[in-house]
Amino acid sequence: MEKENKAIEMNENLSLEQILNEISENDFDDIFDDLFEQISTLIEQKKYKQVREILIEMNSADIAEIMEEIIDEIDIEKAILMFRMLPKDVSVEVFAYLPTTDQVNVISGISQMEVNYIMDELAFDDMIDVLEELPANIVDKILEQTPKNERKLINTFLNYPDNCAGTLMTPDYISLRKEMTVGEALAYIKKEGMDSETIYTCYVKEAGRKLIGIVSLRTLVIADDNLSVGEVMEDDFVSVNVYDDQEEVSDVFKKYDFLAIPVVDKEDRLVGIITVDDIIDVIEEENTEDFERMAGIMDGTDTEYLDMSVLSHVKTRLPWLIFLSVSLMVTGAIIAQFEDMLSSVIVLVAYLPLLMGTGGNTGSQAATLIIRGMAVGDMEPADALKVLWKELRIAATVGLVLSVFNFAKIMIIDGESALIAFTVSLAMLLVVIFAKVLGGLLPMAAKKLGIDPALMATPMISSITDMVSATTYCMLASLILGI
Amino acid sequence: MEKENKAIEMNENLSLEQILNEISENDFDDIFDDLFEQISTLIEQKKYKQVREILIEMNSADIAEIMEEIIDEIDIEKAILMFRMLPKDVSVEVFAYLPTTDQVNVISGISQMEVNYIMDELAFDDMIDVLEELPANIVDKILEQTPKNERKLINTFLNYPDNCAGTLMTPDYISLRKEMTVGEALAYIKKEGMDSETIYTCYVKEAGRKLIGIVSLRTLVIADDNLSVGEVMEDDFVSVNVYDDQEEVSDVFKKYDFLAIPVVDKEDRLVGIITVDDIIDVIEEENTEDFERMAGIMDGTDTEYLDMSVLSHVKTRLPWLIFLSVSLMVTGAIIAQFEDMLSSVIVLVAYLPLLMGTGGNTGSQAATLIIRGMAVGDMEPADALKVLWKELRIAATVGLVLSVFNFAKIMIIDGESALIAFTVSLAMLLVVIFAKVLGGLLPMAAKKLGIDPALMATPMISSITDMVSATTYCMLASLILGI
Repeated sequence: MEKENKAIEMNENLSLEQILNEISENDFDDIFDDLFEQISTLIEQKKYKQVREILIEMNSADIAEIMEEIIDEIDIEKAILMFRMLPKDVSVEVFAYLPTTDQVNVISGISQMEVNYIMDELAFDDMIDVLEELPANIVDKILEQTPKNERKLINTFLNYPDNCAGTLMTPDYISLRKEMTVGEALAYIKKEGMDSETIYTCYVKEAGRKLIGIVSLRTLVIADDNLSVGEVMEDDFVSVNVYDDQEEVSDVFKKYDFLAIPVVDKEDRLVGIITVDDIIDVIEEENTEDFERMAGIMDGTDTEYLDMSVLSHVKTRLPWLIFLSVSLMVTGAIIAQFEDMLSSVIVLVAYLPLLMGTGGNTGSQAATLIIRGMAVGDMEPADALKVLWKELRIAATVGLVLSVFNFAKIMIIDGESALIAFTVSLAMLLVVIFAKVLGGLLPMAAKKLGIDPALMATPMISSITDMVSATTYCMLASLILGI
Repeated sequence: MEKENKAIEMNENLSLEQILNEISENDFDDIFDDLFEQISTLIEQKKYKQVREILIEMNSADIAEIMEEIIDEIDIEKAILMFRMLPKDVSVEVFAYLPTTDQVNVISGISQMEVNYIMDELAFDDMIDVLEELPANIVDKILEQTPKNERKLINTFLNYPDNCAGTLMTPDYISLRKEMTVGEALAYIKKEGMDSETIYTCYVKEAGRKLIGIVSLRTLVIADDNLSVGEVMEDDFVSVNVYDDQEEVSDVFKKYDFLAIPVVDKEDRLVGIITVDDIIDVIEEENTEDFERMAGIMDGTDTEYLDMSVLSHVKTRLPWLIFLSVSLMVTGAIIAQFEDMLSSVIVLVAYLPLLMGTGGNTGSQAATLIIRGMAVGDMEPADALKVLWKELRIAATVGLVLSVFNFAKIMIIDGESALIAFTVSLAMLLVVIFAKVLGGLLPMAAKKLGIDPALMATPMISSITDMVSATTYCMLASLILGI
């Protein structure tokens, strides 16, 4: 509380311009908190004119962030109140920056006329994203207001399967004909270009909408005005199919450093383009999916952590936990087989966590490197032998160091017999080698079988190494100690 | 081997054009393997003319990929042989797409004249990346050939600290003056624009290089030719400082959907621009760092897994393993305290892995979600109370389900007494609650203290929960079973 008061005070000493300048620079977080405090206080005090004056100076992305904060911390009504203060064109931009859940909430809180205005002005792909999340009755109401041919296009876009190129693309692009001169093309762009989300790449189509070439605005600006578009366009371009998975599309972007890529259907007809800003979101989404799967979390919705209900969280976490607890029971059953031996040399039990924990940790280091390596395209299942050879040598080195370290510790600090120290150390070496090889190869095997390698991370690897650790350790002990 | 032969056979049945068409579409991997086989066979047979014919039809990014494969699978000499077959302008593009280690190898294998040509034609930021990795004597040789003022610029760029905005930027941009008309600006771009890596955003500077506005090429093309640049430019733009961390820069890109961002020094003078394609690499790099840290792997170089020596791998993995094995020894010591009790009811030992494993798994689910949530900006340490409340409820639900499940299993399948089943289940519930809360709060606490939250993932969380599981379980058993 004290901190908040200080923040407001600080604000009053800074001019608005100073604050806004600061935002363009550093320490976004602190300045943001200050601005949020200032705006929400002004809304509370109904000083709407001042709120509007502050907002009008701000970047749309920043306004969207403040609005999100108001929705989370205060309520949606106050946020909508603020939203309505914005000039119409700014409000559309701010709307586009909001997360989908908030967009749906805003739509439900404003008039049909305002909704129609926003839908009309929104970039096509952004509009589709919103429509996909809205309840059917609201979608119907919006579609009633759209012209018939646009309605048909919207319905086509709404029907593409999740996570395919079709759901990422926008039909807003500049198309040219190869007979146009460069000068005509530039004049055409000058006339038509205002609405496009991107006009940096233009697409050259022949009759039947077949894509025959691409030409960047840069090329057009630089080229002689009298050349034909056909002469300056590139006919050797890369495109993706409308049903390609978004992960494949993002791989293409990463490889070729594109700003936009054309999307074609089976007959090579251009149906839309995908721009790089949407790909950055895809990359982050795919990474989040990998992080979650690697921690044994089932695919949830794209909802943010704090917005997800307790029940949804439980649903995404429980399945793997139950599966893993069954495998941990197997480890328990293995140990139970050696009960007699363990109870006669009970000190052995004290080293079980060390062996199982080290197995899990070493195995998941290898698995993480391999999963990530395959995800960024550094290696593929065909490299399995190279990985095996590398992990074997790493494991031998790491295993030896850990074994010697533990041998010394068990004899000197714990004061146990050399036989016990030897049993634990040898088991350690074997477990480390097994864990590294398993961690290295299991993700590759999974990929080969068409299973997501990310599922072969820590939880899975440590469950398996637990079983192997317990078995190896107990059998070695029984052999070496002769019990 | 059989597969490889089949691939070559298949190739001979396909026309070159068919293969290349296929590449632009799907199943990159298979087609690539085929092309690689074909090219490497032709090189082996010294049919260089045919190799050149194939290469000349290919995209530079694809040639770079084939070349990487040749370096990895055959040798650098063959790769350089192929590289020298390329038309000069293509060779520069291919060079730019190669990973840095391969670039350095190529540089060492070609003539000084070829090196100078490549360095001259390479985009400035790509050249800096190469120079940073080259041995000092080669850098000196290259710098000897560059004009004095460019040499000074190169030295400035080479001296920026790692991972800051300065190392990502390029000085190749279009700068305009606000007094120019739009028509003059376009004419200027037409004359100057050829060398720039990107000209989609132009930068308006006043005397003293101070950046006063930005204007997109799109705006210029669409605007009336007689307006002045000052009238159409945006003076409310976002910039980053040359010493800002690359992670901050990528956050700015993610937030504002930019294609390029200006980089300024302390005096607001424009020193370069950063383009979105370099940011995609930064995002992947930062994600890789998080993945590795979350698996207890110390920051290595940016070298690919397969290119890293066994010793470097050991160096990145061993420190955490030793640290973790010390913490696992503490768990062992805790268990050793309860030796008498455990040996009198030895069956209790069989449930230790279940409790410790479940603790680790549930804790790392929570930790992963929080670490990732903070990385993508969905939450911050200030949300700790909300996270605590959410994790408590999730943990109670998940813990109850797992406890009931295990209680039934221990009584019915294992045939143990109700008291033992109760001990295990109650310990399970407590461990799950502790693990979820720890997993939820520890990464937030780390961030608050300026430590990378990614370090508070599975290995750390499971080491701590292991200790707590062992203590809770043994104390509960001692209490409930009265031993």
